Amino acid sequence: MTFITLLTDFGTADSYVAEVKGVLLSGAPGATLIDVTHETAPGDIRSAAYILGRTWHRFPRGTIHLVVVDPGVGSARAALALSVHGHRFVGPDNGVFTPVFHDAEVEAVSLEVPAGASRIFHGRDLFAPAAAALATGAALTTLGQKFAGIPQRLAYTLPHREDGAVVGEVVYVDRFGSLITNLTADLVPSHAKVEIDELEIGPLKQTYNDVATGSLLAYVGSGGVLEIAVRDGSAARRLGVGMGGRVRARLD
Amino acid sequence: MTFITLLTDFGTADSYVAEVKGVLLSGAPGATLIDVTHETAPGDIRSAAYILGRTWHRFPRGTIHLVVVDPGVGSARAALALSVHGHRFVGPDNGVFTPVFHDAEVEAVSLEVPAGASRIFHGRDLFAPAAAALATGAALTTLGQKFAGIPQRLAYTLPHREDGAVVGEVVYVDRFGSLITNLTADLVPSHAKVEIDELEIGPLKQTYNDVATGSLLAYVGSGGVLEIAVRDGSAARRLGVGMGGRVRARLD
Amino acid sequence: MTFITLLTDFGTADSYVAEVKGVLLSGAPGATLIDVTHETAPGDIRSAAYILGRTWHRFPRGTIHLVVVDPGVGSARAALALSVHGHRFVGPDNGVFTPVFHDAEVEAVSLEVPAGASRIFHGRDLFAPAAAALATGAALTTLGQKFAGIPQRLAYTLPHREDGAVVGEVVYVDRFGSLITNLTADLVPSHAKVEIDELEIGPLKQTYNDVATGSLLAYVGSGGVLEIAVRDGSAARRLGVGMGGRVRARLD
Repeated sequence: MTFITLLTDFGTADSYVAEVKGVLLSGAPGATLIDVTHETAPGDIRSAAYILGRTWHRFPRGTIHLVVVDPGVGSARAALALSVHGHRFVGPDNGVFTPVFHDAEVEAVSLEVPAGASRIFHGRDLFAPAAAALATGAALTTLGQKFAGIPQRLAYTLPHREDGAVVGEVVYVDRFGSLITNLTADLVPSHAKVEIDELEIGPLKQTYNDVATGSLLAYVGSGGVLEIAVRDGSAARRLGVGMGGRVRARLD
Repeated sequence: MTFITLLTDFGTADSYVAEVKGVLLSGAPGATLIDVTHETAPGDIRSAAYILGRTWHRFPRGTIHLVVVDPGVGSARAALALSVHGHRFVGPDNGVFTPVFHDAEVEAVSLEVPAGASRIFHGRDLFAPAAAALATGAALTTLGQKFAGIPQRLAYTLPHREDGAVVGEVVYVDRFGSLITNLTADLVPSHAKVEIDELEIGPLKQTYNDVATGSLLAYVGSGGVLEIAVRDGSAARRLGVGMGGRVRARLD
Repeated sequence: MTFITLLTDFGTADSYVAEVKGVLLSGAPGATLIDVTHETAPGDIRSAAYILGRTWHRFPRGTIHLVVVDPGVGSARAALALSVHGHRFVGPDNGVFTPVFHDAEVEAVSLEVPAGASRIFHGRDLFAPAAAALATGAALTTLGQKFAGIPQRLAYTLPHREDGAVVGEVVYVDRFGSLITNLTADLVPSHAKVEIDELEIGPLKQTYNDVATGSLLAYVGSGGVLEIAVRDGSAARRLGVGMGGRVRARLD
């Protein structure tokens, strides 16, 4: 029983996802495919990294995670297959794997573009064959040379203290317009006063149902980090804040 | 071979569906997952109930149906696992299971929220583990206490006679804008004249192709109930009618 | 291990796809289902044909391809099951199978509408049972009479020479607004100057990254044919060109 998850920015209206799945199932007919999402905004590496970080560890050890959000396809960016925490990851070296590297032993190989591969569809012609090979039992080291460099990592404003507050940033905006930050629950005690872009949101709530429809609230979300939302509305639209927005939890 | 269907309002752009699937496959690696839909409007219990009612019985006996349209998450609403008609159902007690109760023997247990569960993501932390346990052979009664109450049911204007007409209501609007009612085919003879919001649609047609593009028509749809549509258009937009709209089939 | 792919215009918000999947898995519980897409515009046979042409051959021999883009449902159009190139295809006789016929030996049977089938949902009541039967080993010839006619084919402006240029047409517009033509790479040498609707796009590029954001480019896409796109934008919107648009590759 081998699982392969798929995370792309291909959308689901065209043929692209199915072409990848055809290659995966032709190479590894017994694999079980799971769509994580194909609706990441085109080229939005940071959102893809966030989604990967929330999902990979929910799957059994041995799962293969195919991530193709690859605005640099056709450029000189490296192509990677990784083994981390007993999971395998396949995709471009553009920072999208940042959340899986945390404190981990990483084994990485560099994938060579096969002859005849499309220059703009490495998902189908480079990454899918590598994922299928892993799914049928190939060792990581048979897929390519040991990766000589250090895999790229995205830069974030890491949580830090400043003027009696803990400061972080918005790392994802979900489809409801909720602003998801990188401040973990342990950094935000229950008496903290949350501010975003100078606006005070007030003390932490437990759930949406603690405020009236249309009200702003801050709470620890299901990913274990501080989120800012509007009940039955969009905090992103209300506040005009998006990815990278600065968030403070005042502790005084 | 165990099937688990998923019906949620999570959308497919974020990590939420994949987190649930990771929990399901970690607990029940041999299960086959089928997406019913994740595009129910947020919190729209009535639409989710309609979709569940059309789909569950198409799957083999023994299928587990996980339904997470749960605007009351974090409130006191009960969490249920049910056995009905040889199928199993897992989700919140908010009426979403109404269409499966019809004339059926129902066995119901109440699920306890596990320690450490997110207060706002019971789909992942409460319902998915219960569905996975059922998929690996756990008996319903091992999942919780027998449910002491009566599961909630949605209130509909049940079809009835009034002034020489059969009266019902719109119970779903599909993505084409077709208005789907709760008047079953046997209540609407072929000579009936269909009216909605005082507007007469005329006699029943067999298919879209019986009228010109842009024309309104009434017909018995693939769910076996009266529908009102516009060929190549939206009846909901044309008529300004939505869920709960009153429909009459005049028999005179 | 039997694969069934699904290509429809049903969307994913309603119950329709899940009803079809329930029928497939009730009839063939061991089949593996793969969504190609359900977002083809309603009744858009040409787009469905293009997507089918790009995907079917990526799957293993023996795969069953269920295609339900069927604006003529309820009319006199025939219903087909086909065996071509070792793959099986099930769907309406409306031209959607055009790309699989190329130079191929085709075995075709005509499917009879079962008693009690919905007149407007042959996907569930006619085509899905036929696909499930094939998936459990039924021979094509057991599903119906040998098809007496010639399956319908879509008409395209086939690539041809005219005034020192190769001329073809746009056969698909993807969700990014890229215009995909029927001019294969061998017809468009690297020195060709590409024109669409009298506008000159210029010489072929290799990838998006060869031009600046917002610029038009022509290149050989991942389907092996000429495409016209705008980097990080929509060529369809920029140029006001869609399906059937005339494309020239000047060779002088």
